Amino acid sequence: MTNQPKSKQIKLGAFLPGGGQHVAAWRHPDQPVDGATNFEFHKQLALTAERGLFDAYFLADGLAVSFGGGTEGGNAKVAGFEPVTLFSALAPLTKNLGFIATASTTYEEPYNLARKFASLDLISGGRAGWNVVTTATEAAAHNFNLDIQHPHAHRYRRASEHVDVVKKLWDSFEDDAFLRDRTSGRFFDPQKLHRTDHKGEHFQVRGPLNVPRSPQGHPVIVQAGQSDDGRGLAARTAEVIFTAHQHLGTAQEFYRDIKSRARGLGRNPNHVLVMPGVSPFIGRTEDEAREKYDRLTSLILEEDGIALLNALTGGTLDLAGYDLDGPLPPAPPTEGMKSRQALIRQIADENGFTIRQLYQWVASARGHFTIIGTPVKIVDTLQEWFENEAADGFNILPPWLPTGLDDFVELVIPELQRRGLFRTAYEGRTLRENLGLPFPENRWATARHSIEAAE
Amino acid sequence: MTNQPKSKQIKLGAFLPGGGQHVAAWRHPDQPVDGATNFEFHKQLALTAERGLFDAYFLADGLAVSFGGGTEGGNAKVAGFEPVTLFSALAPLTKNLGFIATASTTYEEPYNLARKFASLDLISGGRAGWNVVTTATEAAAHNFNLDIQHPHAHRYRRASEHVDVVKKLWDSFEDDAFLRDRTSGRFFDPQKLHRTDHKGEHFQVRGPLNVPRSPQGHPVIVQAGQSDDGRGLAARTAEVIFTAHQHLGTAQEFYRDIKSRARGLGRNPNHVLVMPGVSPFIGRTEDEAREKYDRLTSLILEEDGIALLNALTGGTLDLAGYDLDGPLPPAPPTEGMKSRQALIRQIADENGFTIRQLYQWVASARGHFTIIGTPVKIVDTLQEWFENEAADGFNILPPWLPTGLDDFVELVIPELQRRGLFRTAYEGRTLRENLGLPFPENRWATARHSIEAAE
Repeated sequence: MTNQPKSKQIKLGAFLPGGGQHVAAWRHPDQPVDGATNFEFHKQLALTAERGLFDAYFLADGLAVSFGGGTEGGNAKVAGFEPVTLFSALAPLTKNLGFIATASTTYEEPYNLARKFASLDLISGGRAGWNVVTTATEAAAHNFNLDIQHPHAHRYRRASEHVDVVKKLWDSFEDDAFLRDRTSGRFFDPQKLHRTDHKGEHFQVRGPLNVPRSPQGHPVIVQAGQSDDGRGLAARTAEVIFTAHQHLGTAQEFYRDIKSRARGLGRNPNHVLVMPGVSPFIGRTEDEAREKYDRLTSLILEEDGIALLNALTGGTLDLAGYDLDGPLPPAPPTEGMKSRQALIRQIADENGFTIRQLYQWVASARGHFTIIGTPVKIVDTLQEWFENEAADGFNILPPWLPTGLDDFVELVIPELQRRGLFRTAYEGRTLRENLGLPFPENRWATARHSIEAAE
Repeated sequence: MTNQPKSKQIKLGAFLPGGGQHVAAWRHPDQPVDGATNFEFHKQLALTAERGLFDAYFLADGLAVSFGGGTEGGNAKVAGFEPVTLFSALAPLTKNLGFIATASTTYEEPYNLARKFASLDLISGGRAGWNVVTTATEAAAHNFNLDIQHPHAHRYRRASEHVDVVKKLWDSFEDDAFLRDRTSGRFFDPQKLHRTDHKGEHFQVRGPLNVPRSPQGHPVIVQAGQSDDGRGLAARTAEVIFTAHQHLGTAQEFYRDIKSRARGLGRNPNHVLVMPGVSPFIGRTEDEAREKYDRLTSLILEEDGIALLNALTGGTLDLAGYDLDGPLPPAPPTEGMKSRQALIRQIADENGFTIRQLYQWVASARGHFTIIGTPVKIVDTLQEWFENEAADGFNILPPWLPTGLDDFVELVIPELQRRGLFRTAYEGRTLRENLGLPFPENRWATARHSIEAAE
């Protein structure tokens, strides 16, 4: 595969929940035991990610207390910061790092969501991204006036309409709408402020939004849906797609499918970046890397491992009474995270894992790709995926923090740079510029330019 | 009135919209013309307010483009930051200043609202406040799936339930819920995590909230409703009440009414701080102060003055065709800002103002009390209100920025301090400590302590 521009390099996101990614991360002596709710710790992580020239800091989000469907013993992720609030606080403390926050199309109104992301984008000087999720847990539904959550297909229809409304709201002001002419008293040009006038199945929003566009036009749209509905939404709207794969083959299948869908929808496939998640255990030797893996694995409590499997399969997998050293029992269908459920089961089947082995394996990366080894081995793999239509970049999920991130910045980034696969300085000031994504011209300016061109 | 503790001093909020308070502020050469959307400018304002030992930075909010019901010429407030996002960004850049952000009970879900304020409170180390509003414009309703807004009484019933749900969500974790015991693997005590289990007229929220309590327990609850519904909600739930009065007499009536209502509801009236708004034009001489007022007044465009009156009376006052140098025409009733509408009309009636004189007067303070004079005269007035049951403190609305704030910090604060009316250093680190408000014990801990005491 050589139709990529020579200058094309790997893009990197850093997935840095303060509580650590691995289910036992908080028990590791390197990690602050209160990391999930420690602002100074998040600041330190952001500064390290920026030192490592990462494109963006990425955070997932949930709209309910997540303690694994019943087990209450030891989940460090039970509480934390709301991502947009957190990223706003980190924005003025950094200069180039992007901030991709997750927010829900099911439980937020488009006007409020558009506004907070536009505000973050403005505060950060154009470094915001929105990871679009439909929120798939029953627990979240119970916090928003529902007895049971809406079906999968309904959530995705709503998401599709929601993203359209948000993007239109973000175009309310054209980039040159503000005159700010003290002499005439004309603050803005009313011809360049546009109503949204949306009336659809789920939303009725007149607009305009009361926040201007940022230096990157609007926040980068990110998606992580893996189901057919999810892929469809991503191919139509996403500029970055996070995805979880265990093998080069399935990653390639996904990559080609997304690019093909995007092309089919008239989009430039180079403007849809596919970034699989990778959870690296990094050692100067193979043994050192393996010891790090074993060390964290030894810290997993049985009840936390079971709760994790339950959470990852949509809260419907009841393992009570099953032998942890026996196979995974069948699970009922769910309206929850369909693709993640299938992936977890596939990992168990392919490896012939017992319940215990399965939770030990997914404890670090929750279904994302885990690599244990030296920087050379890790970069070999990343390069192979990058050069063979499996990835435009990667979302790095350090198993525990800050060590897992420090290791990546100090050992893996230099190896990537030595091979010319990664930047040695930020290309731009905005997230979009660093990702190599085009500036989205305001739809109203585009429309006017088309008319002018035709005249 | 001497039943106040001797040590009691004036509390001060700073109302600092980046676009300035006065309708023509942006046309003043001192003020950055892009102040409303300039983050560095907001940072400078926050640092100045903190240098002046203000209790809090306060921001109003609207959920629609505000350009005065149709006039599109020159409104500097047409676009800006969402307050919680902005305050999160300012929090790590400051140490003691509180941040009171406005958010809507009508157009935000309790779970989302509780979460973003809890997150800001945690990030700031206990310096957040929530100004509870019901949002009273038709324009906002049109952005949230409605053709017309809900009636005033409906909005207040919803607000009352909303605040209850939010406060209960904020109590999800008890203050000592987190064990973080690496050895046992117990991260939190499940006995100290509580579901919300709310089912009411407007909301069904199971909880718990996925954010812990902050060092101040929960954000300070602020209110600004003036109507009977508004006063009732404030007396029941608010810890700080912003209010607008032109005269000592009406301020005293309001103050006594609120304290009496609070007492009647079993609350300690000292824990409900009444803070009228004051817009000061400050000069070293009376003439200098008057010149500053005249200067800003001269910058008001007729169309902006008319649009302002329209906006302040709920968007229903159509002045087209009326002589600006004649009297204010009658207006139809509105479901909008009832009390503010009455106040504006009262100002016109009392002063015999023409339409032009009226908009010139309200242009600086929008119905709040305007004082033009020397620091001594201004402090005389503040002291009179403070010592005569009209105010526990004031919300200062500098007419234009940064000069109006700089003048207050450099000229008025020292005079307040000389008279022993204002702090010379922050008393505490949290907003609550500085305001002298009690730490709200978690309701679940209180319940358990009661049971223990009875046993």
